[in-house]
Amino acid sequence: MSNEAFQNINLLFEKAVAERDFGILAQVYTAGARLLSPGVPAISGLGGIQDYWRSAASSLGVTRAKLHSLELVVTGDRASEVGRAEIFTTPDAPPVPLKYVVLWKQEGGAWKWDVDCWNMDA
Amino acid sequence: MSNEAFQNINLLFEKAVAERDFGILAQVYTAGARLLSPGVPAISGLGGIQDYWRSAASSLGVTRAKLHSLELVVTGDRASEVGRAEIFTTPDAPPVPLKYVVLWKQEGGAWKWDVDCWNMDA
Repeated sequence: MSNEAFQNINLLFEKAVAERDFGILAQVYTAGARLLSPGVPAISGLGGIQDYWRSAASSLGVTRAKLHSLELVVTGDRASEVGRAEIFTTPDAPPVPLKYVVLWKQEGGAWKWDVDCWNMDA
Repeated sequence: MSNEAFQNINLLFEKAVAERDFGILAQVYTAGARLLSPGVPAISGLGGIQDYWRSAASSLGVTRAKLHSLELVVTGDRASEVGRAEIFTTPDAPPVPLKYVVLWKQEGGAWKWDVDCWNMDA
């Protein structure tokens, strides 16, 4: 499994946000994934995570997200990734910088995000 | 290496905060560790991380931190942990709940935190 496989999943996350099609996140997160987002308790399970991103993208007016993978360590059927990202809202607003750790896990032969923890730089 | 070894390092973090002795963090974080804290860009390296916690504990009036490990996955010389924690400030204030992901790495024969990402529940 090359790093490209991981990159392709990250691109699917970007696509879900850009197209506001959060059904795509079923290809990104495991069924039992946990989302550790700032400002809310941990969210467990794909359905709740889809609801969270749907609501957050709408209330914050997010138009696009761009992920930058900085480090990926693969060990068997697990992997860990450290990265940074930007969230874009209105065309005139500067992008919001953030950083994240994703714990990847193989599910049904595909690499997916099993734990996603992030916070904003400011 | 038992889970107790990891637990003991987490207790050292609590001790560093409770005693405001951030020299102890040299036993907790790897030399090249990265701290992904909310409100600031990522901090790389033990020295900067010690400075951050020293400053944050002082400015926020933190008196104690309590970590609760929820999941630990060990793969070779790496491990990942998902947990929650509380930060205590003044005796009358309710504890501040937060959650975290720590990527552990062996350094010099000891398990240490190599990446520490956290955020608050509210």
